[in-house]
Amino acid sequence: MPVNLTAPAAHSLLPVKGLQLGFAEAHIRKPNRKDVLVIQLDAGSRVAGVFTTNQFCAAPVTLCKQHLKTGKEIRALVVNTGNANAGTGEEGLQRAQQTCSALADLLGCDAEQILPFSTGVILEPLPVDRVIAGLPACISNLKADNWANAAEAIMTTDIVAKGYSKQIMIDGKTITITGISKGSGMIHPNMATMLGYIATDAKLTQAAIESITHHAVNRSFNCITVDGDTSTNDSLILMATGQADNAEIDVNSANFALIQNAMTEVAILLAQAIVRDGEGATKFMTVTVEAGKDEAECRKVAYAIAHSPLIKTAFFASDPNLGRILAAIGYAGVENLDVNNMQLYLGDVLVAENGGRAKSYEEAQGAAVMKEAEILVRVVLNRGESAVTIWTCDFSYDYVKINADYRS
Amino acid sequence: MPVNLTAPAAHSLLPVKGLQLGFAEAHIRKPNRKDVLVIQLDAGSRVAGVFTTNQFCAAPVTLCKQHLKTGKEIRALVVNTGNANAGTGEEGLQRAQQTCSALADLLGCDAEQILPFSTGVILEPLPVDRVIAGLPACISNLKADNWANAAEAIMTTDIVAKGYSKQIMIDGKTITITGISKGSGMIHPNMATMLGYIATDAKLTQAAIESITHHAVNRSFNCITVDGDTSTNDSLILMATGQADNAEIDVNSANFALIQNAMTEVAILLAQAIVRDGEGATKFMTVTVEAGKDEAECRKVAYAIAHSPLIKTAFFASDPNLGRILAAIGYAGVENLDVNNMQLYLGDVLVAENGGRAKSYEEAQGAAVMKEAEILVRVVLNRGESAVTIWTCDFSYDYVKINADYRS
Repeated sequence: MPVNLTAPAAHSLLPVKGLQLGFAEAHIRKPNRKDVLVIQLDAGSRVAGVFTTNQFCAAPVTLCKQHLKTGKEIRALVVNTGNANAGTGEEGLQRAQQTCSALADLLGCDAEQILPFSTGVILEPLPVDRVIAGLPACISNLKADNWANAAEAIMTTDIVAKGYSKQIMIDGKTITITGISKGSGMIHPNMATMLGYIATDAKLTQAAIESITHHAVNRSFNCITVDGDTSTNDSLILMATGQADNAEIDVNSANFALIQNAMTEVAILLAQAIVRDGEGATKFMTVTVEAGKDEAECRKVAYAIAHSPLIKTAFFASDPNLGRILAAIGYAGVENLDVNNMQLYLGDVLVAENGGRAKSYEEAQGAAVMKEAEILVRVVLNRGESAVTIWTCDFSYDYVKINADYRS
Repeated sequence: MPVNLTAPAAHSLLPVKGLQLGFAEAHIRKPNRKDVLVIQLDAGSRVAGVFTTNQFCAAPVTLCKQHLKTGKEIRALVVNTGNANAGTGEEGLQRAQQTCSALADLLGCDAEQILPFSTGVILEPLPVDRVIAGLPACISNLKADNWANAAEAIMTTDIVAKGYSKQIMIDGKTITITGISKGSGMIHPNMATMLGYIATDAKLTQAAIESITHHAVNRSFNCITVDGDTSTNDSLILMATGQADNAEIDVNSANFALIQNAMTEVAILLAQAIVRDGEGATKFMTVTVEAGKDEAECRKVAYAIAHSPLIKTAFFASDPNLGRILAAIGYAGVENLDVNNMQLYLGDVLVAENGGRAKSYEEAQGAAVMKEAEILVRVVLNRGESAVTIWTCDFSYDYVKINADYRS
């Protein structure tokens, strides 16, 4: 069951002026479920995106990048679940294009003003006729107050829908930020992918929204791992409709940090929600590595801990198995690491220093921390000023069950 | 249960002239089990070793490296199970030294002529008095025909003992090679470690045995993974007693390749045995990556496949889930990989090419291969001449069970 995560109440997801959402039950893979989503943007909106680095990236990812590169104003996003349109070659690209063309015709814009997304089974042809057949229904129920339905429409094996809203004041105007995400492993290669969509009504320059996108993704979706696998379809899109009547914000504006921090906060909550709903998760772990020489080495240590199946199974068992964490720090690949000059904490408890167990440490202290549903692992390297925080979950019987039974 | 692996029959492990083995039941952690092993080498033997790269390496690993560095002739090895003497700081180093000194006194040599090894619980003080108390019993039962007992004496959570012998002819003389290994994950951080000891009676120069050691480890112990974790105590030792009466072999000798290949073959069998006895293993997987630009990129692809929990759980389920393998190839980090110009085979079956499922492929073909206990995954990158083969096992409920229940 998801760790401290429930689906957002419909009224808690606030409309964003200039943006409407509509969904359809198009029977892409299974009947009677929302499986196509259209997000329509008013003219004047700015859009930026970050996509998977997997070289087997899906056809819609290739098309998204091409369409954003044209510099044409993006007017709509279309998402289908049930099929990832990945590993589908030239034909897959054509089907993603057909989807864009069909939606563009309905909305009266160019196909290049549409961004397509797919998530679901890979290596199977996209049932493009069914996606296109669902588009009129999406358009007929387009409305601003449809975020909760949208969060459900993009789910695949997620147990709960994921969405957050936040409001801040800029220039005396209320700025709304609302986002949704999906994913319950870093990758489900059949029902693939992590997707995130975050919109604001703030007025931002293109440079500003692109800068915020990279800032936010590096502190949110790039800081989570369930199983270390990177999907073929991962995408994060930020949108700014510009209808909040604030003075336009550029990267050097006084208010830039304010909107950047607020959008990053929503991105972090959406990313953490994916880990909380991680496949088979029973624990939510925060791994912080401090006082490293640079962020790169902090990341190495944090991911060595977060990816270790031995550590993740020990957390599942609530076993304060410190040796496994020390071993992971030791093989993380940090050059000239002085293992005798670092500290390891579980929660507030100092568990290791001087290359071994701390003299003050008693097993009961570690055991108490491990019983919690949310656990902090903190490593202090004592060799610099950099720090990194990432989030992950434990590794349970259910992880094996979900992934072994998945296609059957 | 181990995959196609049974303990070696005692008579199948051949004595190596100039080397004797003795064991004791010293109650290091549990009563009534062989837990201390002494391997004694006659004067004139050559020894070389390779050790863990983990920076949290155990005290005995540090000492082994120091003793080999002195250039003094190594006369004995001493191994204890039940305690890894890792994460034990300065005191741990002293206890490893005490063990060496005690054995040196009994054998009439210097402490620096002894190599110590420990495997078992980490972060707990080595019960050095019990180790030392067991040494006289080891010495009293030293004999050449004791390899099968030795293979049992170094086991921790291994289900079966691991050992192989091989004989070749050089200069009309019979050369014997016998080796033993232990380990059933790349790391058991409590009952830690992978250990390997391979001896021959061939006469080798120091340069020759060191060269063979690196050649062998790179094709054997460095080509296996169970869970991607690297232990604090991993060690591989090669020994040559020089009593086979062959003309001494140096790196440039005509017979060098012959002995190198034979010792490497034994190393590969011992390394594969560890994977076959991998924690919870039900399948033995060979991953071959061919036609890469260099070995480094072949290794990246092979390990991306071998480490993916999603792929390993699919193999456990006998599910030919090709998408997971393609995704792993895509995120392996190979620069400018053309995913449309590579082939993926399961056994002999071509399953993917041109960036997607092969036209000739039918699911039943993949399903048939996946039902086997031994499975070949073959990737052809079509961009160079290099190739790499590694071995791994699947990821089962029992893996989680073993690692979650381990300390309880």
